[in-house]
Amino acid sequence: MKKSEFSFIGDIATMFGSLPHHGFEPIGDDCTVLDMGDDALVMTTDMLVEDVHFLRGASSAAEIAHKSLMVNLSDVAAMGAKPIATLLSLSLPESAQGVWSEEFMRGYYEVSKREGVALVGGDTTASRDRITINVVAIGRVAKENIKRRSDARIGDIVAVTGKLGASSKGLVDIMFGDLDTEAARAHRLAQARIAEGVFLGTRHEVHAMMDLSDGIASDIRHIMELSDVGADIELSAIPTDYDIRYATTGGEDFELLLTLDSECFDAVATALHAATGTTLTAVGRITDSGELRWLQDGTPQELELKGFTHF
Amino acid sequence: MKKSEFSFIGDIATMFGSLPHHGFEPIGDDCTVLDMGDDALVMTTDMLVEDVHFLRGASSAAEIAHKSLMVNLSDVAAMGAKPIATLLSLSLPESAQGVWSEEFMRGYYEVSKREGVALVGGDTTASRDRITINVVAIGRVAKENIKRRSDARIGDIVAVTGKLGASSKGLVDIMFGDLDTEAARAHRLAQARIAEGVFLGTRHEVHAMMDLSDGIASDIRHIMELSDVGADIELSAIPTDYDIRYATTGGEDFELLLTLDSECFDAVATALHAATGTTLTAVGRITDSGELRWLQDGTPQELELKGFTHF
Repeated sequence: MKKSEFSFIGDIATMFGSLPHHGFEPIGDDCTVLDMGDDALVMTTDMLVEDVHFLRGASSAAEIAHKSLMVNLSDVAAMGAKPIATLLSLSLPESAQGVWSEEFMRGYYEVSKREGVALVGGDTTASRDRITINVVAIGRVAKENIKRRSDARIGDIVAVTGKLGASSKGLVDIMFGDLDTEAARAHRLAQARIAEGVFLGTRHEVHAMMDLSDGIASDIRHIMELSDVGADIELSAIPTDYDIRYATTGGEDFELLLTLDSECFDAVATALHAATGTTLTAVGRITDSGELRWLQDGTPQELELKGFTHF
Repeated sequence: MKKSEFSFIGDIATMFGSLPHHGFEPIGDDCTVLDMGDDALVMTTDMLVEDVHFLRGASSAAEIAHKSLMVNLSDVAAMGAKPIATLLSLSLPESAQGVWSEEFMRGYYEVSKREGVALVGGDTTASRDRITINVVAIGRVAKENIKRRSDARIGDIVAVTGKLGASSKGLVDIMFGDLDTEAARAHRLAQARIAEGVFLGTRHEVHAMMDLSDGIASDIRHIMELSDVGADIELSAIPTDYDIRYATTGGEDFELLLTLDSECFDAVATALHAATGTTLTAVGRITDSGELRWLQDGTPQELELKGFTHF
């Protein structure tokens, strides 16, 4: 549904664009933002459906809780906001109303506790035969620290946190029954870059930022479109322990993709590492070409990399 | 799942109670409240599941959109807050991805427009075979105008807006194939008391308030428990065009249930009618008995009325 999802959302944004906004920004590609004076609230929501986004047989209830919370916290932190609270809706078939739901809530609690995030509301209800999970995450940020996909500037360095590709390599491992590889663990318990997002939010040298949920090949295009720029990405620079296909088109890495002032890259990378222990790697440049070009050691490549499809 | 839902939510509230709240009130029986200075945001969420909360064959997509939005706007307004925005998550099986989803969104838009509410975020995703809808509604209110279930005082008059029982009578009509009765229309297109809730929020004579979603027999107990009081309800005073069973235990009327200073009832009722055209009817008293008593023309009745079960 990935393709039609986008046009459906486009239609919705047009349809609802004329309604009063009451201090909220209109629907865009980032979290929604509510002006609160010096601060802003950012909010995002994600729905996970059994047999589409997860299989009850392949992931524990705690792992599913972890994932459902992380995808949302990651979106909030990628705007530079500190996640403060979530709302959780669960619809549970009878087979998930006892032990499964308790394990889910314990897992949800553990992640909430570790990240210092409150659970402030929700709904639980029955379903016929499959679990559906909806999480809303709310973050708070000083307005001047908000990072958006639309703020990349020509000449910026394109950078990523950490290493890419582990989560999708792990998914393939799991599909082949190798449940205990390092990549499989990375897939099941991927950690959003929350402290990193909040830190990078405070750096004015950072211009555009988002989290990598569909792979850089797909996600950089959101920044390009919304910032009206092009990008050159150097394949040999992409930090990964796996095949370049995982590292460029693999989903759910939860690393941050950002663009920043080229003269300040070293200073920001050093400060980020000092603050969080996380590396920042330059992988390309924002250009005025309007196009995405892949380079191998500086030479343009004919390469068609598609984004990751979650379902 | 109504029974286990409550104990499950109780466990969750206890489990998460020790986490930092970041300005949010802990999970209670009302919407969550976020302190914003002079104002507060209130938020609530509700999940609707196909074949549990609605049947695709019995309601149009627009009617389901209407209901999914109204249940949430009603919760917000029942705290005295003006609904300003919603987030909508939809998971859609292939059979609902074309015409059904477009009709749903058109219906959602019509209600949003009429109520002046923005759509500020959401998620759409695939599902295997059933539709799930999650709506989050956000309202804004001056802090001093927030009404809660916990603020009833002994001696207060218990009052309701409008007339009770139409929605559940309508559901029974629909079950028997009478789709075109006035009650059936009331069930399909029940209107939350939004202007009324906001108006009553401004009246300091009103103490506790909530919306009637499970029938007064069930919902008054929430006010009793949270306010640590009892209540006497006079059956002959309950405003209804239908059997008293519908009027006391029928669900989804979306009328307001409130308690207010007994000396001010007439003034508030007159002002509410002038402002909104809606009647306010006194149906009982808050007592120190700790119990719910049903009266018929002043005489206590042995009567066991159960709450409405949605599924």
